[in-house]
Amino acid sequence: MPHIHLPEGLPGILGPMAFSPETTKPLNELAEVLLRGPNTLSRGDREMIAAFVSSRNDCFFCHSVHGAVAAHHLGGDEVLVQSVKVNFEEAPVSEKLKALLAIAAQVQKGGKNVTQEHIARARQQGATDKEIHDTVLIAAAFCMFNRYVDGLATWAPADSMIYRESGKRLAEQGYTASTEMLKKQHA
Amino acid sequence: MPHIHLPEGLPGILGPMAFSPETTKPLNELAEVLLRGPNTLSRGDREMIAAFVSSRNDCFFCHSVHGAVAAHHLGGDEVLVQSVKVNFEEAPVSEKLKALLAIAAQVQKGGKNVTQEHIARARQQGATDKEIHDTVLIAAAFCMFNRYVDGLATWAPADSMIYRESGKRLAEQGYTASTEMLKKQHA
Repeated sequence: MPHIHLPEGLPGILGPMAFSPETTKPLNELAEVLLRGPNTLSRGDREMIAAFVSSRNDCFFCHSVHGAVAAHHLGGDEVLVQSVKVNFEEAPVSEKLKALLAIAAQVQKGGKNVTQEHIARARQQGATDKEIHDTVLIAAAFCMFNRYVDGLATWAPADSMIYRESGKRLAEQGYTASTEMLKKQHA
Repeated sequence: MPHIHLPEGLPGILGPMAFSPETTKPLNELAEVLLRGPNTLSRGDREMIAAFVSSRNDCFFCHSVHGAVAAHHLGGDEVLVQSVKVNFEEAPVSEKLKALLAIAAQVQKGGKNVTQEHIARARQQGATDKEIHDTVLIAAAFCMFNRYVDGLATWAPADSMIYRESGKRLAEQGYTASTEMLKKQHA
C-alpha cells in the first residue's frame, strides 16, 4: 500500500503524478526533452540508459516501463534490453553505448564516481560533450524518478503485457502527452 | 576541471544549466514549484531538506547554496542550518521537521528505505499527505541535482560570502528568474 493516499488504479509514478499536477508538468517536460528531444543519441539508446539506471536502483516499475519503451524503439528486442540490465559490458550494443552506460553506472552510485577515465573511454568511442552531458543528466534524473516511485511505496503491476502497452504508448506519444492524459482522467 | 567544456566562470550547476538551456527550463520550474510554490511547509523548511540531502550526498556546491537560501529564509541563522546538516535529530528544529528530515535521509539512500514507521512518525507530528509527498520529491530531486553537479565535475567556490549572496538572490528572486539570468548572460 502506498505511504500516502493516491488516486486509485494508477500504477507506479502515475499515482503521485496525478496527486501533484504542479510538479508533474516540469517532471514530464524534463523526461520529454531528455529522452525524446532532438539528439544525436537515439531515443532507444536514451531509454536504455534510463532503464539500466532504474534497474541498478532496483525500481521495478521504472525499469520495466522504460525497458519496454527502449524495446519498442528497438523493434521489440526485449532480450537486448534484458542483456543490458544484466551485464551491459557483454551485451550486443555499440562500444559507444557501453561507455555511456559505464558513466551512467557511476552516476547511479553518486556523481563523484565518474572519473576522467570514464570520460576518456566515452570520447574514444566518439561521444560528444552533449552526449556525455545528457547521459549524466538522464542517469541523475532516474535517480530522482526511482526514489519518487519507491519512496512513496507505489504499486507496480507484475504483468509484462501492461508494460509493453505503456512502452508502446510512451514511445509513440511521449511524456508531455502523459501529463495531458492524467489531467483528463482526474479532471 | 569539468568533464565537458562548459561556459566559463559559472560555478556548480550554473555551468551545465547554461550549456543545456532546454533541460534547464524544466529543472528550474521543478525547483521553483517544489521549494517556493504555495505550501504548508515554509520555504525555509523546504530549503533545509534540500540542503540536508545535498550534504548527505556530499555535494558541496548544492549544500552550500541551499543552506544559504535556508539561512536567508530563517533570518540568517547559519548555525541552525549547520546543526541540521551535522545531526538533525539533535538540532533545535520542530519535531515535525525532524520526522520529515528522517524520511528525506531514507530517500537519499534509496526509495525503498522509507518504511511505514518513518511515515507514522511524520503523521504523529501532524505531517499531511502533501507534506510527505513533497519531502520525498524534494529529497529525490536533490539526488538528481547533486549527481548532475558532481557527475560533470563542476567547480565550486570556497568563499562562503559567494553562497550568502547566491542564497539571498535565490531566496528573494527564485529559480525561474535564474533561468532568465543565464539566458541573458549567455545570449
